Amino acid sequence: MNVLILGIDGYIGWSLAMHLAITGHAVSGIDNFSRRRNVESLGSISALPIQDIYQRINSFRKIHGKEINFYLGDLLDYGFVTDVLNNTWPDTIIHLGEQPSAPFSMISREHGLYTQHNNIEGTLNVLYGMKEVVPNSHLLKLGTMGEYGTPNIDIPEGFFEVEYRGRSDILPFPRQPFSMYHLSKVHDSANILFACRVWGLRSTDIMQGVVYGTRTDEMSDDSLLTRFDFDECFGTAINRYCAEAVIGYPLTPYGMGTQRRSFIDLIDSVQCLTLAAENPPDKGEYRVFNQLDEVYSVMELAQHVEQVGKKLGLDVKINNVQNPRIEKEEHYYKVDHELLKGLGFRPTRKIDETLQIMLADLSKYEERIRQRSGVIAPQTTWHDGRKKLSEVNPESTIPAGSASLAA
Amino acid sequence: MNVLILGIDGYIGWSLAMHLAITGHAVSGIDNFSRRRNVESLGSISALPIQDIYQRINSFRKIHGKEINFYLGDLLDYGFVTDVLNNTWPDTIIHLGEQPSAPFSMISREHGLYTQHNNIEGTLNVLYGMKEVVPNSHLLKLGTMGEYGTPNIDIPEGFFEVEYRGRSDILPFPRQPFSMYHLSKVHDSANILFACRVWGLRSTDIMQGVVYGTRTDEMSDDSLLTRFDFDECFGTAINRYCAEAVIGYPLTPYGMGTQRRSFIDLIDSVQCLTLAAENPPDKGEYRVFNQLDEVYSVMELAQHVEQVGKKLGLDVKINNVQNPRIEKEEHYYKVDHELLKGLGFRPTRKIDETLQIMLADLSKYEERIRQRSGVIAPQTTWHDGRKKLSEVNPESTIPAGSASLAA
Repeated sequence: MNVLILGIDGYIGWSLAMHLAITGHAVSGIDNFSRRRNVESLGSISALPIQDIYQRINSFRKIHGKEINFYLGDLLDYGFVTDVLNNTWPDTIIHLGEQPSAPFSMISREHGLYTQHNNIEGTLNVLYGMKEVVPNSHLLKLGTMGEYGTPNIDIPEGFFEVEYRGRSDILPFPRQPFSMYHLSKVHDSANILFACRVWGLRSTDIMQGVVYGTRTDEMSDDSLLTRFDFDECFGTAINRYCAEAVIGYPLTPYGMGTQRRSFIDLIDSVQCLTLAAENPPDKGEYRVFNQLDEVYSVMELAQHVEQVGKKLGLDVKINNVQNPRIEKEEHYYKVDHELLKGLGFRPTRKIDETLQIMLADLSKYEERIRQRSGVIAPQTTWHDGRKKLSEVNPESTIPAGSASLAA
Repeated sequence: MNVLILGIDGYIGWSLAMHLAITGHAVSGIDNFSRRRNVESLGSISALPIQDIYQRINSFRKIHGKEINFYLGDLLDYGFVTDVLNNTWPDTIIHLGEQPSAPFSMISREHGLYTQHNNIEGTLNVLYGMKEVVPNSHLLKLGTMGEYGTPNIDIPEGFFEVEYRGRSDILPFPRQPFSMYHLSKVHDSANILFACRVWGLRSTDIMQGVVYGTRTDEMSDDSLLTRFDFDECFGTAINRYCAEAVIGYPLTPYGMGTQRRSFIDLIDSVQCLTLAAENPPDKGEYRVFNQLDEVYSVMELAQHVEQVGKKLGLDVKINNVQNPRIEKEEHYYKVDHELLKGLGFRPTRKIDETLQIMLADLSKYEERIRQRSGVIAPQTTWHDGRKKLSEVNPESTIPAGSASLAA
């Protein structure tokens, strides 16, 4: 394949880029470094030290002997988008280039508008660019299981057969997103479906569970590590728990912790994305894959971290905190995830095994995490945002060049 | 009621403002005049000559003795939004302030992004402004029946009870919008539902059919007329047919003309919006009303115009043209519309009666329409946009101040 990765400097982007390059695919990528800036705007940093993208590509070339092409730019810049498409002529575009944090999108009005603006219009530019330059290319787009919310019925893969008043149809499954970020992904999904139907593009929309892990096989040297966030916005529950365990803080499930979510190991996420890319849909086809392996409540997750941490000699306690989010804590949750298995997906990791590696990796950087431990506790509430930050300097966390767009 | 109308200079906005002011409500309104500019950008104009908003408000004061307050500004300017809310303290916000044309949104990438940017972020600013300034106010938001598309099952009012694999839930009805514009309205609906659930706002989302008619009772003088568009973008099928009938052009249904749509008279639309405003939902409630009276295929509509036109002595023929849109021409279409009737809605007009008035009104301006007759025929295709216009000057039709946002 000739693959273009949008958001190649991110957590999954970098891991996937190395995997695809090593397995013989031509890999190019773009990034605007917004993830680094957005994390820094919260006073945080990747727990594992990572090099900049140019250094990582150099290290990767030296260690693995493969080339990755990088283009610096923003999906909101349509001229940049078409230039890159014309330079690379990808048959596969893997779109990981969005603002990926729900709490970040709830900090303030500016953050909410920035998230929807950046994600919706960036993706629209990708769709228009594909139509103009590479109409046969396959768009593999990262959505989220959070698009579905927590309905009281089974969650199928994107579409379902509805029987209603004696008639039936196959319709998009209703989405019930629960943050400005999740909404942006739902809007993307609708825009992509439309582009496939009307312009004959082809796309796989990945409803992915929470991804965890610090390593893939390709990270044979620390210079090739991918980022690991632990702040309240960009660190998922599992990442925050691991950071807390390493520095001796109690783990902090939100509310009762009975909220159930889907999870998948980074290595298995890379496996799934590769399988989806290698098996493209037909022209004009829009398909949805639910990409997950295990389902846990956030309390169960904390208990796994507690158990694994104790085996490693860490002093781990659990201390539930008030839920800053507005979400159902007790709910039904049953999710189909058969389509990727049909393409050959076989999960290779289970959570306890990976947690052991994560805690060992993070322990090396205990001081680095401890120095920034203030970023872990929730400060952003779904009802009132992050008052202090947005009131003191509402533009402070918006990447340069986007502030005016959100005004 | 103390009502703020967003988009008061538009077709429904002006009609509704007069009706509410005359029936004893305090009425303020805002507009950025984008509708006038967007129509002008296509080389068109309102078939009925209308005064500017300041002149119309003066005429209205002289004729009806009532005041309407006007604020010039843009919903994308959050400072303007909160200033107006702080000045007016509305208990009811009627949001008609969006780019309302599907073909306009399909002209080019710039038009698609402009439409989603303008509609989504304008509405987000309204939601954040309500949360900040008037959290108990009722948002009455104009959506469109086109949000639903044409599923093969009955269309309920916003939500439906789903039975699936032995379980059930009440979920948002799946949306299948068929243009960049319709998508923007679907995105709005999801954002508004979220704001009601999370911030406790209250909103009525109106899925409105196509509105037709040139007059309401309040238009006792030509200085009080509302706009009437007949170009391919802002003129609906019924408006284009009437303009064609008046200048002796054949009526031009798209494709087979078997596409069925919902319709409602302007007077009845004003009646419905007034009823919805006078009967607000509870705090935190998001409700959806399907606002329509009659259902016709676009071919049946042409036949109505043909029959009424012939009675008035016009020489009317029908000449189907190639469908520029990508849409189902033959489809099931059955729409619930009981909720507004439950609030007291009683349709007062039927289409033939109103068509007679429309054709008589437009006949006075036959020359004005004939001079611009080139704007009626479709030039924008769903697959390729309006190539000439966008290629010659892609920014030409984007309102000043928004071009950079769409870039």
